[in-house]
Amino acid sequence: MVRRTRFNDSDCPVARSVDAIGDWWSLLIVRDAFDGSRRFGEFQRSLGVAKNILTARLRALVDGGVLEVVPASDGSAYNEYVLTPKGRDLFNVIVALRQWGEAHFFAPDEPHSEMVDRRDEHPLHALEVRSADGRRIGPDDAVVKKVAPPAAAPTPSAPSVPS
Amino acid sequence: MVRRTRFNDSDCPVARSVDAIGDWWSLLIVRDAFDGSRRFGEFQRSLGVAKNILTARLRALVDGGVLEVVPASDGSAYNEYVLTPKGRDLFNVIVALRQWGEAHFFAPDEPHSEMVDRRDEHPLHALEVRSADGRRIGPDDAVVKKVAPPAAAPTPSAPSVPS
Repeated sequence: MVRRTRFNDSDCPVARSVDAIGDWWSLLIVRDAFDGSRRFGEFQRSLGVAKNILTARLRALVDGGVLEVVPASDGSAYNEYVLTPKGRDLFNVIVALRQWGEAHFFAPDEPHSEMVDRRDEHPLHALEVRSADGRRIGPDDAVVKKVAPPAAAPTPSAPSVPS
Repeated sequence: MVRRTRFNDSDCPVARSVDAIGDWWSLLIVRDAFDGSRRFGEFQRSLGVAKNILTARLRALVDGGVLEVVPASDGSAYNEYVLTPKGRDLFNVIVALRQWGEAHFFAPDEPHSEMVDRRDEHPLHALEVRSADGRRIGPDDAVVKKVAPPAAAPTPSAPSVPS
């Protein structure tokens, strides 16, 4: 098996996130977990992927701390997979992907699943990147500050000689 | 080559987005494009991936309407890759991945690149999912409404017979 390029030691948080998620469709497992799927069979029916592949991806998400395995909620012998707090923190990523998909991959009258406010079933507000003081921030309003390279070792100074 | 499972006809916008992005690390190409990379060599130096793989991923992003190829800005013979409006709409996804990475993949004192407000260099506000009327929405406050299955064909009624 070809070893994929890893980005887990990058100093870029985007790279470490992407690396941790691994196969890109693993986010669909996370999506299903948000939607209430807990059992292997539920993920398998939703995603339609081969069982050995799903097994590997679930294990990777557990190893990465996104999912945890818990005893079945009904006392049966099945294991269940639930999001950890770190996994639940992917909510913004899932919502951002959902809104991008809604905007660009559906015809105006094409039906699609919709995430709504549980209280009143209204669609959610579009995500907005904002500055610390609340201004809207678009791609041109932000800049990435790279990590400074390690400071060069200081030039050895001449030994101090009593004058 | 094994054909990967496709999600491009799903009625879930998250699935279509994931499908369109394709390989997991393609978002790092998008990240670099946001950061100002335009030329093949710039992406290649940043990502350190094999040229044939980068070529394929760039082509996929162009085919998917995320990047477009434009003549070099300096009049040279090189092509350059720039984000389309659809590609720029991935800004929220990149910011969400960045913030998740910052929260979970760096030790408190570990340096990492940081996206800041261009105007004052302050870090950006954390993304917040909100309801249409402005309330904070967490994973438990939202629910996904699935697309209703097509209505069953009406049962053929008995032919109308004049009585």
